[in-house]
This record gives sequence, C-alpha cells and structure tokens, in this order.
Amino acid sequence: MDAAQPMTLDDLPTPCLVLDLGILKRNLAAMQAAVAKHPGLVLRPHLKTAKSREVARLAAPDFGPITVSTLAEARYFAEGGWRDQVYAVGITPQKLDAVVALNAAGADVKVITDDLDVARTIAAHPGPLAGLIEVDVGEARGGVGHDSPVLAEIAGVLGKRLAGLLSHSGHSYAGRSLDDMARIAEEERSRILAAADRLRAAGHALPIVSAGSSPTSLHARAMQGITETRAGVYMFGDLFQAEIGTHAMEDIAVTVLASVIGRRPERNTLLLDSGALALSKDRSTEAAPIDYGFGLVLDLDGRPLPGPAIVKRAYQEHGEVQSTAPLPFAQLPIGGRLRVAPNHTCLTAAAHDRYHVVDGGREVIATWDRVNHW
Amino acid sequence: MDAAQPMTLDDLPTPCLVLDLGILKRNLAAMQAAVAKHPGLVLRPHLKTAKSREVARLAAPDFGPITVSTLAEARYFAEGGWRDQVYAVGITPQKLDAVVALNAAGADVKVITDDLDVARTIAAHPGPLAGLIEVDVGEARGGVGHDSPVLAEIAGVLGKRLAGLLSHSGHSYAGRSLDDMARIAEEERSRILAAADRLRAAGHALPIVSAGSSPTSLHARAMQGITETRAGVYMFGDLFQAEIGTHAMEDIAVTVLASVIGRRPERNTLLLDSGALALSKDRSTEAAPIDYGFGLVLDLDGRPLPGPAIVKRAYQEHGEVQSTAPLPFAQLPIGGRLRVAPNHTCLTAAAHDRYHVVDGGREVIATWDRVNHW
Repeated sequence: MDAAQPMTLDDLPTPCLVLDLGILKRNLAAMQAAVAKHPGLVLRPHLKTAKSREVARLAAPDFGPITVSTLAEARYFAEGGWRDQVYAVGITPQKLDAVVALNAAGADVKVITDDLDVARTIAAHPGPLAGLIEVDVGEARGGVGHDSPVLAEIAGVLGKRLAGLLSHSGHSYAGRSLDDMARIAEEERSRILAAADRLRAAGHALPIVSAGSSPTSLHARAMQGITETRAGVYMFGDLFQAEIGTHAMEDIAVTVLASVIGRRPERNTLLLDSGALALSKDRSTEAAPIDYGFGLVLDLDGRPLPGPAIVKRAYQEHGEVQSTAPLPFAQLPIGGRLRVAPNHTCLTAAAHDRYHVVDGGREVIATWDRVNHW
Repeated sequence: MDAAQPMTLDDLPTPCLVLDLGILKRNLAAMQAAVAKHPGLVLRPHLKTAKSREVARLAAPDFGPITVSTLAEARYFAEGGWRDQVYAVGITPQKLDAVVALNAAGADVKVITDDLDVARTIAAHPGPLAGLIEVDVGEARGGVGHDSPVLAEIAGVLGKRLAGLLSHSGHSYAGRSLDDMARIAEEERSRILAAADRLRAAGHALPIVSAGSSPTSLHARAMQGITETRAGVYMFGDLFQAEIGTHAMEDIAVTVLASVIGRRPERNTLLLDSGALALSKDRSTEAAPIDYGFGLVLDLDGRPLPGPAIVKRAYQEHGEVQSTAPLPFAQLPIGGRLRVAPNHTCLTAAAHDRYHVVDGGREVIATWDRVNHW
C-alpha cells in the first residue's frame, strides 16, 4: 500500500473487525431519544459489548455513568476517566480488593450482590465501597427474588453501603414483538419498584433503582420510579437484535471483514477465512424467525449477497458460505472480500483486539482498541 | 497473597485457563507412540490449539516441523525458532508477501492452495515460497477432489514450487468408534496416495504427503506412503474428543478455573463467572453420546461434581450450572472455586491470553503466553 493513500477495507489483513461510525452514532441517538422520553431517567450504557474508550466517549460522553462486566473493564475505563461505574456481575469476596483499589484511586465502582455473606464482607471491608442488591424480576439467572424476605436482610447488612437495587430483564430477548418488550419492561418495573418501596419503608434511601436491557430500554412505555436504565448491545446491534426489533437490519454497526479462501461453484459454496474464532460459535438466531447460521454474508459495501447467503458451517479458521441463490463467483476470486454480520455482536467483537472504523464507505478512518479478557 | 508462598489455584483471578503439564506430557507421549508405530512417519503437530511456544517446545522439540493456522502463529513460531512450517489454511494472494517475508528471514513456511489462479500467483512470486496442493479426501470443506484433473493442472503451474499434497480428514470427527477412525484414515490414505501416484507419474517429486487429524493420527492402522501426519487437539483433549475416543476423560489437560457467583439451592443451580466468553459457545458435544452443555463442572482437583454437573446456560459472563444430582452447596459459597472441562479446547483456549500451568496439584508452576488473533 502506498503510504500516501488512505487505508481502505481492501488493504486490511483479514479476518478483522469493522465498525461503522455512522451506524454507531445512529444507534446511540435512537437510544438517547428513547431514554429522553422518560423525564429524569439516566442512561447507564453497558460497555461489555464495545469494551472501548473511543466508543464510551460517544455512548457515555463527559465521562457519564457506565456499566461494566469485568474487572479489566472497570480498570480500563476508570483509568480512562469514567469514575461512576456499576460492575453488573455478582461480586465475589476475592474481587473486592481490586474494586476498592480503583475506588481509593478516585473511581466510584459499585458492585452488586444477591448474597447475605457477601453483603457482610462488603459491609466489613475497610476501603471505599458501595453495593447494589441484584433483584430477580423474572429472568431466573441471578438476583434475590423481588418478593423475597432476604432482600431486607441484605439491605440491613449493607446499611450505609447500600447504593440501590439492580435488575436485568434478559428474558426480554425471548420477546418477539414490541408489545412483548413493553410488557416485560413494565413487569420488571413493577417488581423492582415493589421491592424498592418495601426497603424504603424500612428506612433505606436507595438512590439508584437500575433496570434494563437493550430491548426494554428502547421499548418501555413507562419508567417512573426507575432512576437509570442499562443497555449495551444496542450500540452495535446484530442479527438477533434486528430480528427481535431492537433496530433495523441496516443498523448493524459491526461486521467481520473476510477473504474468500475457497470456491466451489459446483456446490454453490464459498470458504471464508472467518470461522469459529473470528465469528464466535454463537447460534442465537437459531431461536429467531430466520436462522442465519453463524452470520449473514454481505458484500464489501454492506449489502447482503443474494440468498440470504449465510455462514452455514464454522470451523476454527474456515467459514463455509451457503446460499439459496447462486453466489456471484465471477466477482469472488480467492482473496475477494466480503463482510459478515454477526448473530451476537458481544461475542463476535470479543474475538478481536481492535476495531477498524469506517464511516459509510471503505476508507478506514481510525483504529480503536478493546479491553478483552478479565 | 504472601509473596513467599507459591501461587495456587486458590489465588488466581477468575475466570482463567489452567493447563496440567502432566496430562499434556501424557497426551504428547501417546501421540508420539502412535506415530512411532509407522516407520518413517513424521508428526507435524498443529499448533492452532496451543498457540504457545512453551507447548511447542514439548510437542515439536528441537524446533521440529509444525503446522499453523494463522499468519500470527507463523510469525510467532518462526521468531521462536520453528523454521519448518505448513500454514494449513488456503492461502490468499494478499497473504503471500507476509509469508515470503518470514521465509526471506530464514523460515520455511509452506502455503496450501486448491486454486489454479492462486497457484499462478505463488509460481510468479519473486520471493522464496513453496506450496502444497490441498486435496479433498471426503470432508468436502477445502481441497481439489482427489480424482480431479485440476490437481495435475495446479501441479504443473506450481512446478518446482510444489512441495507436496495435503489432506485433512476432519470428517473423522463424525466417527464414533476406533474402527470408524481407522476406516476414515485408510480412506484418506488411499485417496491422497492415488492422487500422489498420478502426479508422480507425471514427473512431480512430491516430497511431502501430509494427512491427518487427531483421531486418524492416533488410530490409523497403516500409514505407508504418508510422509507426515498432522494433529493438534490431542495435546489438550476435550469432552468431544474424549467421547469419540481420542483420549480418556481423565486426559483433558485444559480447564477453565471459575468462581461461584450465584447459588440457588432451591433450584439446584449455581452461577459461575465463566460464561460464553470464558468457555466459548461451542456445542460440539450436542452431537456426541453425552451432551455436556457448555462444559463439564469439576472440583478444584479435577474430579467431576456429582451429576454430571454441566454448564447448561451460558451468558456473556455467567455460566449456569445444573446437575442431575444435588450440588454440594455447603462447600460452595460465593467465591468458591470450580473448574470446567471444555467441549472444544481449541475455541475455549482462544478466549484466553495465557495458561496457568499446574502439574497434578494446585500449585501454579508457570505462566505461558498464547498468540491469539490473526
């Protein structure tokens, strides 16, 4: 490549991750508009999907409140200037010292728990620390049951270190219509508010009542009583979220750039150099109306190939493309380039250590890093 | 932790990857013994699973021949001293310069192709370069059909740059008995040798006839005519390979160390901090006799929990453990530690940037890096 020429999608080594800045900004604006419909509601974006300070500058401007899923994220964003964090995965006693070290250095990373013994450890820790109680509003993953007496016990143990309540409506992903999302959001709201009312009646202040998921943050009809909503995947979107109505198919901001490494016109299949490692083996669209295998195949400009053409088989470094329509072999020699839209962008992005940023075209305008691992 | 004390599995931040050196050595010895049964056969271990120089020192001692799956691996191992490599994923013209740069610096990285146009580009490249023709022996992924006339055309184009033939019997993974493996190995052998015979009759020397997969490398009854066999996953093993007979369940060398982050005695479930990112979403045991979900749960010493206990649901950072037997909640507070044996070790290992090495106990005797990405 001539150093005087701008880098384009034709120059990048494959496989690699491409992020479209224009689509990202559109998705962020859509969420900000949805949240702004609810007076006083704060958006606390979840950075588990993006794991990038450059994305956080747009999604949580002015170092606004964020959500994280790992200690590595907490550290990376704290060092980048984002003080106000919720670390939204149940904390273990062994991880508290690392959180307290960040807080002692100026951050305000709040932990979550649903366990009485852990609450005691949080309460007894000599360093700066605050916690939210995780409340189960129907997902049946983590959290104290919203109507359980244990809630009040944990609140009592945390005492002044109780920062509020947190719920996650991950079961909204099972919804298949905007009405479903709105109903699940309202169920979450009524349950976490009932829990909050009981604790407040017992004298707890609960400054934070945090709820959310991308679908419910976008489609909730009422948010009164909820102080903040958390969402992450909306930033980038993916095939699954498009199918359940979080965004349009055209609003998938992250794709994997791949090269053709095999051609079988007689079988109407292609091999790409994006396999299980570059795409992840997430199969979430298996449960959605259209099953996209391991991803939907697009041309270099982001338009779907005839079909749909999907990555039907994924080996470690090989992805086999199949299509219901004839594939355009004449335009796809070995080394020809395609893009793959992911089933689940959180997992696909985590397979890569950086984003190659474009803005609607093929020119690469920036490279942004990611904080992977733990 | 007291700096004077040795680091143990109780001290490591979770989730993380644990490699048992004793099991690794046992698996390497088993493969070396299997290969030694065939006089003259060379083992060219595939480093796509381990991606580690420390493992390569044991699996390919004295900088012996290796197989790699990415340019990143080729570069990392070449710089580490392993000259003789086969880069066993169909090459693109755009990747040739990077390979040639390694070869010009002293390496001997051989590429593979099944495409006439790519063969012309290889033949015309001004730098040091040699290629093998990929032959399809039944997997129907990449490769020229073993009886296709295109084989001779590609061989003719490569001319003096033709280093040999390469096949991969990945369809051996569909085998469910040692007889199946032996039959698939023999089919691979007869097909690639028929192709080699035809090309040799046309005057091509073909110094390398490379075949393999872990199951066929271990269970082939005859290897005459095959010059080298490639295998990778045998080093670490996994649940899927144990189910198809590559090794015993006790010989899974790589596990994910996890902490309990949620307890639900009333539902007999646990949450671990090893979810889809730490384990991968590989579901290969779905097609095996026993479906282990996203992994089999072991205690800190590597013994299976009652059940089997498996990671039944995998969220980004949460793994939900379910079991057919009562889980030992009394020994598993929040922060309690378990290990998870993976469905597919290549994908699980790739989610981590290092190995924490133990040797049959809990003491961490070394930390070994990995070369991830591309």
